Amino acid sequence: MAKLLVLYNQPPDPAAFDSYYHRTHVPIAHKIPGLRSYLVSAHKPRALAGAAPHLVAELTFDSMADLEAALVSPEGQAAAADLANFAHAGATLLAYETRPAN
Amino acid sequence: MAKLLVLYNQPPDPAAFDSYYHRTHVPIAHKIPGLRSYLVSAHKPRALAGAAPHLVAELTFDSMADLEAALVSPEGQAAAADLANFAHAGATLLAYETRPAN
Repeated sequence: MAKLLVLYNQPPDPAAFDSYYHRTHVPIAHKIPGLRSYLVSAHKPRALAGAAPHLVAELTFDSMADLEAALVSPEGQAAAADLANFAHAGATLLAYETRPAN
Repeated sequence: MAKLLVLYNQPPDPAAFDSYYHRTHVPIAHKIPGLRSYLVSAHKPRALAGAAPHLVAELTFDSMADLEAALVSPEGQAAAADLANFAHAGATLLAYETRPAN
C-alpha cells in the first residue's frame, strides 16, 4: 500500500476551513483515480509531542505507482490546485509506501 | 478507529536509527495493548510540501478510549520511554480519531 498523508496547519478561521474542506475539497479529492481509502481526523489531533495540525487526511492507494499516477492525473491536479483555495496556512504532504512493522 | 501517528525527524545517523527502531523499538511497541495495526513507511517519505520526516509510524486502535488506555498502560509507557534511546532528533506524535471523508 501507499499513502498520501496531508497535515494541514492551523488555519486562522477553522470554521471556514472546515466548511470548505468538507463541502468542496472532499468531493474533488474523492475523484482521484485509484483512491482506496480516504480518512480524516474526526477532531483536531492531540499532539503528545511536536505541533498539532488542524486536520490530518490519509489517502491510501494500492501502490506507489498508483499514487504517482494519481498525482499527475487531471483529478489529482485538480485536488492539488484546490489547496490554494483554503490551505492558506500551509500543509505538509507526504507520500510513502507502507509496510507492517515487524 | 483511532490513530497514533508518529513522524520521526531526520536523525544524524539514519542507519543507527533504523537499526535500533526495527530491532528494538518495534518489538517493544508491538506489545502495546489494543494495537490493531502497526504500519511504517517502507522508505523515507517524499515531501510534496513541507518537510519530510525520516520515518512515519501509524498505530491503529479500535477507539480513542483504547488508544488512551494504551498510552497509560505499562507497555505504552515502556514504548514512550524507549523514544529517549533513539529519537534524539525529535518526533511529532499525534493522536486522533479517524472517520471516512465524505
